[in-house]
Amino acid sequence: MITALGGGVGAAKFLEGLCSIIGNEPLNIIVNTGDDIKLGGLNISPDVDTIIYRLTGAVDRKKGWGLEGDTFNFLNSLKKFGLDTWFNIGDQDIATHIYRTHLRSKGFSPVEITSKIARAFGLSDNISVLPMTDQDVETWIQTNEGEMHFQEYLVKRQMKPEVCRVAIRGIDSAEPAHGVIDSISGARAVIICPSNPIISIGPILQIKGIKEALRATQAQIVAISPLVGGRPLKGPADRLMRGLGLEVTSAQVARLYADFLDTMVIDIEDAHENQEIIDLGLKTLVVDTIMSDKKKASNLASSILELL
Amino acid sequence: MITALGGGVGAAKFLEGLCSIIGNEPLNIIVNTGDDIKLGGLNISPDVDTIIYRLTGAVDRKKGWGLEGDTFNFLNSLKKFGLDTWFNIGDQDIATHIYRTHLRSKGFSPVEITSKIARAFGLSDNISVLPMTDQDVETWIQTNEGEMHFQEYLVKRQMKPEVCRVAIRGIDSAEPAHGVIDSISGARAVIICPSNPIISIGPILQIKGIKEALRATQAQIVAISPLVGGRPLKGPADRLMRGLGLEVTSAQVARLYADFLDTMVIDIEDAHENQEIIDLGLKTLVVDTIMSDKKKASNLASSILELL
Repeated sequence: MITALGGGVGAAKFLEGLCSIIGNEPLNIIVNTGDDIKLGGLNISPDVDTIIYRLTGAVDRKKGWGLEGDTFNFLNSLKKFGLDTWFNIGDQDIATHIYRTHLRSKGFSPVEITSKIARAFGLSDNISVLPMTDQDVETWIQTNEGEMHFQEYLVKRQMKPEVCRVAIRGIDSAEPAHGVIDSISGARAVIICPSNPIISIGPILQIKGIKEALRATQAQIVAISPLVGGRPLKGPADRLMRGLGLEVTSAQVARLYADFLDTMVIDIEDAHENQEIIDLGLKTLVVDTIMSDKKKASNLASSILELL
Repeated sequence: MITALGGGVGAAKFLEGLCSIIGNEPLNIIVNTGDDIKLGGLNISPDVDTIIYRLTGAVDRKKGWGLEGDTFNFLNSLKKFGLDTWFNIGDQDIATHIYRTHLRSKGFSPVEITSKIARAFGLSDNISVLPMTDQDVETWIQTNEGEMHFQEYLVKRQMKPEVCRVAIRGIDSAEPAHGVIDSISGARAVIICPSNPIISIGPILQIKGIKEALRATQAQIVAISPLVGGRPLKGPADRLMRGLGLEVTSAQVARLYADFLDTMVIDIEDAHENQEIIDLGLKTLVVDTIMSDKKKASNLASSILELL
């Protein structure tokens, strides 16, 4: 059994590669729900959906999120009502949000709902997508232009405001969802996907009991840096790290995970950081981490599985 | 000021004709909400939307409901979740339902929401669309195949089960919405649209105070029969009337309204019923009531306004 922690497009791409080589071995994916948002009354869980869409071949590969071939007639129609339309919801995609919202109103938990959505999309039975918690948490970014929901910062404001602080609202009282701790304790390997360390992996690590489970598990723990040459391939990891006063390097990412990590995977472009990471007491793997296609994602996953 | 009572496609067609000839005279339309339904967590108000869509030129004229040029990608996507997909919700149309549901959850009343939707679609300022009540009421049809929501009977079951009884759930405690009674009392004319007398006009008349207001008003009250030759042009009026043991004739419709009605408008095909209606103490107008196009709807509306 393998367990992965992740959120966002980088994680989804890596997991697609991983799934293509693990056969029927059980894989648990603990997914960040800190960037969930409620818009127009709909419960939207972007990281969960991005991973399910990707692993079932439904994703719009060009954009990395949303559904292939989706239309946007709903969103256009929403404009006349003066509702927010900056968050891109496709006409097929909205069925997922309505289903989730409807089940939430009926009392189903995010874990139960995610499982139903995954099965509806035809996710393989050996894969479990687990929202990190059943409680609502929300990532808010304090910027030089005021505080805003992470999705507003990312999508509406296109990461333009300067980041001062990140607050994960509700995280202190969030419990790990059913299955999360066991999937860490019982795994032969735990993989931290190449996701944003501040707003994708960070919220997962802040949930009570998860860091302790990572420290205690017998599993080999491997993290893949989302940075190549001091920059993320997508998303605001560099802006967030810099805003919080952190160095924007793979070595810095390794430092954030050092107290539970065994091996840090960094890109060949960052080979000069290798010794710095070894000095933290970690093993390293220096490989090509750029997943420009499915084959390269499989290769990256293979190199990691060979370590274990 | 003119006030109309109605619901459904027949009312919408007539009102389109009426609006084309009244200039800026205020028109209040009291609309049935008895066939409202909650599906997948969405508040859907078919009669209200059909009238707003028609009077703003947004309607799919071929179908008589929904929005012109709408797509159905959302509905197709819903199938994989096992949710009901028999109720036709277009991708543009769903924006209306999400807006309504969102505002309901924020505490806005159906009257307030309807006004916002009407303005968003660009309804003329002289026209007010008033849901008959702000309380939730639902029309349930008891049939030889069990009891079902009216929409299930109409759309899903295609009016095939045999009707035994009609129950408007919640109607006994429903209050007329703000503006409804005043619009009847203060009008120079009240027009009962060519709508189903059992499930469109019937629920409106069952709301406390509305029949009394119709009896008390100084306004001329005119009703247009929805039947031509003992059959409705659309919908289940004949099946419902027959199921309740009523004669399926325009004279029977007149009898249902006789205690407040001044004039009954019937189709030339039903001229033989003229005397029977006059014997009820009513005036009659025998004209072509078939509104096969906008011009014919205007002509029907003109003949009625000439009476007043």
